[in-house]
Amino acid sequence: MIIIGELINGTRKKIKQAIAERNGEYISRLAQQQDEAGAAFIDVNPGTVGDQEIKDAVWLVETAQAATAKPLCFDTPNPDAMAAALEAYTGSALPMINSISLESERQQEMLPLVKDAGCNVVALALSDAGMPTRPGDREQAALPLMDLLMEQAGLPPERIFMDPIITPVSTQAEVVGLICDAIRAIKDHNPQAHVTSGLSNISFGLPNRKLLNRVAVTLFMQAGMDSAVLDPLDTQIMAQICATEALLCRDEYCMNYLTAFRAGKLPD
Amino acid sequence: MIIIGELINGTRKKIKQAIAERNGEYISRLAQQQDEAGAAFIDVNPGTVGDQEIKDAVWLVETAQAATAKPLCFDTPNPDAMAAALEAYTGSALPMINSISLESERQQEMLPLVKDAGCNVVALALSDAGMPTRPGDREQAALPLMDLLMEQAGLPPERIFMDPIITPVSTQAEVVGLICDAIRAIKDHNPQAHVTSGLSNISFGLPNRKLLNRVAVTLFMQAGMDSAVLDPLDTQIMAQICATEALLCRDEYCMNYLTAFRAGKLPD
Repeated sequence: MIIIGELINGTRKKIKQAIAERNGEYISRLAQQQDEAGAAFIDVNPGTVGDQEIKDAVWLVETAQAATAKPLCFDTPNPDAMAAALEAYTGSALPMINSISLESERQQEMLPLVKDAGCNVVALALSDAGMPTRPGDREQAALPLMDLLMEQAGLPPERIFMDPIITPVSTQAEVVGLICDAIRAIKDHNPQAHVTSGLSNISFGLPNRKLLNRVAVTLFMQAGMDSAVLDPLDTQIMAQICATEALLCRDEYCMNYLTAFRAGKLPD
Repeated sequence: MIIIGELINGTRKKIKQAIAERNGEYISRLAQQQDEAGAAFIDVNPGTVGDQEIKDAVWLVETAQAATAKPLCFDTPNPDAMAAALEAYTGSALPMINSISLESERQQEMLPLVKDAGCNVVALALSDAGMPTRPGDREQAALPLMDLLMEQAGLPPERIFMDPIITPVSTQAEVVGLICDAIRAIKDHNPQAHVTSGLSNISFGLPNRKLLNRVAVTLFMQAGMDSAVLDPLDTQIMAQICATEALLCRDEYCMNYLTAFRAGKLPD
């Protein structure tokens, strides 16, 4: 499972404050903690707008990359901030652009950056038709977007992280089935492409959200999801993922599971 | 999810002692606790042999049925003890025979009892070929057994609880996929038939077994399992099942989930 650590996100109050105050120690610690907890990428989201976002993006990239050798995931809808983040990145591992979609404007703005950087990219199953609601909506945005990224941006499929767009089960009871169908369609279209997503939308509007998020990741992994944007410091979801990988034959001889157990990382 | 409460099992040390001492209070309390925790059936397994098993089975049935209105699940491979348990049962809800299989001897001994009782039955995906190991082994035992129970014992499919036979992931890494294939084949063969199983074999030989058992139930439910033999007093697995049902569209308006939350039954 390829974990994208989500904690350095300027839309969260404490992070917003740390960015505003240029509290590098706080951001560095979050980068290190997520690295040690098993994140493969460290997401950085300035959460601001306009020129400020460009400055904040550059500062976040400089601060985070000094604290971890893991590649960063640049998380902004602002193409200028994205370009500045890519420019500021000095890491040796390929970073990640978060995100592109099939929406005309986002596609036009981000595709040249993706093509130029040739790096990993989160690709949202969203088109100009808006948020997916009906069966097939996700597939209709995801599959052409995959083709576009491979054919027009020249990306190998293993750098593409398709996001099927997780929406709340509280507003659409059958949504998990629709998302799983989309995950299977993406993996059928190209087994080398990855499937990722932020999980927590699934539980929006319901109590005890962490329980639902944990169970959801198992259901999505069974359908073929192999990456997730989440808090790697949440030991319960990390343990659930570890157990799911052992059960789904993605952990040879259960070695990762046994290692995690011996390291005290599997709360009962 | 149709829960079969597994705690009254004479192969467990404390239960063995309670049966030997005819400690009715202890057995009654376990029956009541499992009833209140949401078990649909209360399993009773004498865990002894021969004539003693017949006496123990009758005592267990008399004791448990005085403590709960839930139907009992008679759990013994001994046809005489099964017959005695059925005879002793006075409950109004149809009980359950646990179990029959396609193995010649067990089939010959149990089929007349199943036919005569017309009650629910756990039907193991086992034939004279032995424990399932290869792809298709489970299906090759399960599907003919379902047909036999419907055609020769005259059971409606909703009284049949097919058990796909859960074996340890530690000895066969790909076993969860094989079990899920069998669950889907059973549900394809007859969607009204149930799929049940004891879960804990999946984690045999690995540490932190409860975590694996919880994750496994979610994976099997996604494939179509709608019943399980487990400890309903384990609040974590019950919460996991509750969340899985909400996510898999088996809980209209998430009402059961919300009710369980308000009752404090969903630990975070």
